[in-house]
Amino acid sequence: MTEHFERLEINPHEHANRIRKLQASLEREGLDALVVFGPTRIAYLTGFFFAATERPIALVVPRETEPCMLIPKLETEHLQKQSPQIKHVMVYPEYPGGGSGRHPLTALLELLKAQNLDTLRLAADLDGYEHRWGYRGPRLSALLGRAVPERLELIDDLRMVKSPAEIALIQEAARWGDHAHRLMQDSIFTGANELEVSQAASLQATQDMLSALGSRYVPKSREGKPANAMFIRGVNTALPHGLHEGGGVRAGDVLVTGAYGVVGGYESELERTMIVGEPTDEFKRYFAAMLAAQDKAFEALRPGRLCSEVEAEISGFIVKELGLGALMRHHTGHAFGLEGHEHPFLDLDDHTPIEPGMIFSLEPGLYVPGFAGFRHSDTVLVTNTGCQNLCAYPRDLESLTVRLEAQT
Amino acid sequence: MTEHFERLEINPHEHANRIRKLQASLEREGLDALVVFGPTRIAYLTGFFFAATERPIALVVPRETEPCMLIPKLETEHLQKQSPQIKHVMVYPEYPGGGSGRHPLTALLELLKAQNLDTLRLAADLDGYEHRWGYRGPRLSALLGRAVPERLELIDDLRMVKSPAEIALIQEAARWGDHAHRLMQDSIFTGANELEVSQAASLQATQDMLSALGSRYVPKSREGKPANAMFIRGVNTALPHGLHEGGGVRAGDVLVTGAYGVVGGYESELERTMIVGEPTDEFKRYFAAMLAAQDKAFEALRPGRLCSEVEAEISGFIVKELGLGALMRHHTGHAFGLEGHEHPFLDLDDHTPIEPGMIFSLEPGLYVPGFAGFRHSDTVLVTNTGCQNLCAYPRDLESLTVRLEAQT
Repeated sequence: MTEHFERLEINPHEHANRIRKLQASLEREGLDALVVFGPTRIAYLTGFFFAATERPIALVVPRETEPCMLIPKLETEHLQKQSPQIKHVMVYPEYPGGGSGRHPLTALLELLKAQNLDTLRLAADLDGYEHRWGYRGPRLSALLGRAVPERLELIDDLRMVKSPAEIALIQEAARWGDHAHRLMQDSIFTGANELEVSQAASLQATQDMLSALGSRYVPKSREGKPANAMFIRGVNTALPHGLHEGGGVRAGDVLVTGAYGVVGGYESELERTMIVGEPTDEFKRYFAAMLAAQDKAFEALRPGRLCSEVEAEISGFIVKELGLGALMRHHTGHAFGLEGHEHPFLDLDDHTPIEPGMIFSLEPGLYVPGFAGFRHSDTVLVTNTGCQNLCAYPRDLESLTVRLEAQT
Repeated sequence: MTEHFERLEINPHEHANRIRKLQASLEREGLDALVVFGPTRIAYLTGFFFAATERPIALVVPRETEPCMLIPKLETEHLQKQSPQIKHVMVYPEYPGGGSGRHPLTALLELLKAQNLDTLRLAADLDGYEHRWGYRGPRLSALLGRAVPERLELIDDLRMVKSPAEIALIQEAARWGDHAHRLMQDSIFTGANELEVSQAASLQATQDMLSALGSRYVPKSREGKPANAMFIRGVNTALPHGLHEGGGVRAGDVLVTGAYGVVGGYESELERTMIVGEPTDEFKRYFAAMLAAQDKAFEALRPGRLCSEVEAEISGFIVKELGLGALMRHHTGHAFGLEGHEHPFLDLDDHTPIEPGMIFSLEPGLYVPGFAGFRHSDTVLVTNTGCQNLCAYPRDLESLTVRLEAQT
């Protein structure tokens, strides 16, 4: 990671390399081309990030020739700007037809024919464009009149092990997740509205980030902020995906937070369990148990093991050593990168071998019905010998206690 | 719309009614049950809003008996709280298996068998859960070992015509979109950072909204704010989906804005073209042309016509009367409600008849390469005789000019 990045994004060489790796897989699998509909997969392979709407977009990666794309007229300049390496582009006027009298996917069929691919051994990540935002359309297999095997793993397996450039982006994202969380923690006081505190901290963190990174930061999305923090509180935390609550923060509230940065399209993850004012003994007990489980996870995550082995160790620890198996609601963690959750998962039924360069969340959680939830999560890189936490945020109770006396 | 809503959400009777209408469709179509994987469709039919992740969720609507669901353990309380009417629930431990040794969709198969539905005439909105966030899984047809027709229109066609309750929610959302836009417009000045202005206005509008609506407002999502406004500026506006630009707002900047509210899961839409300081003659010409096209759209949208006829009138006006056909980049508008874009579309190839109760955006746009984009958009309800704008925001140039002298 001594590389220096002028711009905080994946460079064209790496995109070309990803395409070559995919083409090598096609060769091995005896396939002539892969049709790619998944927006994140297209971004991964080409650097073309777009808001997925009802207007279908598809990438075609032939085994031996250059990739080509189907896009709506609306996206012409965006594609050219972000992915000038895509030379062969089939543009359709509009969804559902814009006066052409034909569905956009018929233009995809035309593209495949023009490339002499329509009769060859084709696969796709998905059998057709996904049905979002009012999109209606045929399956690719229906269009071609023959079965099209779905082979999304040919791309998603490449995404599992992150490159040095990807790791550097996620590390940078983690820094800004930390910063947003710090700003948020420092502005929590009794009576504070959780939405107001979260949004103000996220906005400030975003401004700090944009100001610090300047033109090195390249936005990949029109929506959202690149540095974010939020929290839920009270009994709402007893549910893993709890909702916001009205009213103000109160003394004694348990908080479960979430913060992240986004850099070059890559996300980080940071979650903390906090307490407002003096923790009770009950709180301390569960907090210590959760922290011990996460400590165990940091020890357990290393290359050469299977995801399921790591999970067995952590859930075994919670069940047998802590005797708190009844409080578990989910497995220990998940991979991530371009998406908030990615394959593989630290789950008893996921037998993927762990490799250096993978990024996981480690977030064993304990959920005490009617009381509170306890969960830390960190952005963790698998190294050659173990793992490394890319988040620098403190994990101990002392550091995560909102002091009431300081507010007078 | 004289109905009084205690809580700003769809009530259980309406959800039950939607299920009954779907069951009547199944009867007509000779189907015994519909399996529903689309998260928005599940929310529409049951009131169960959830963050769609790698953990699959499915709703089964039999023609004659009560709907039942497949959910992960994690969602048990959320389902119970939001949709207590769903009595029959199959819970799986975790994705990809959580130690059960089987894929979550095998539990769906079990559910179908328990309901004696697996051998009957089944259809689905989509043939399997969509592949998001690292999810990998079989198609429903592969699981059942037979073809499963995809009939998403059985639900989405019901969504086209909004009920009085849905219209009231969208009207309320539009009010807060207006408010967020007003706050944003009033805080634009030369040198202002577009992200900062947008986010601050959105946060203020959200606080005003939550404070005004109190417990009548029921959040349907953990993410995002219920009142939002943003803008892009300068030459970036020349692209329909332009990105943010660094630096501050400058005199002479063309702004294209977007604002919306979200109430009970339903969205509104509001977009305006603005100018910072004195408009040039060139700007005035294009602004007037765009406004004339939108005026034409308000006249053209009425029940009894086809979507394609409305579009033909508007695009015909832009091409023939204005002579600006070369500046068009998209059709006139789209339906929306629970999603930002929904079927049908005001497009030359969409021949859906327009009916009272439909909600459309009307947003004919002109995009002048290298200069700017010109587009207003409004939330427009089709009435018995024509249409009604649910946005109250001014559309004229005078009102949309940021005065520089006022800033001294």
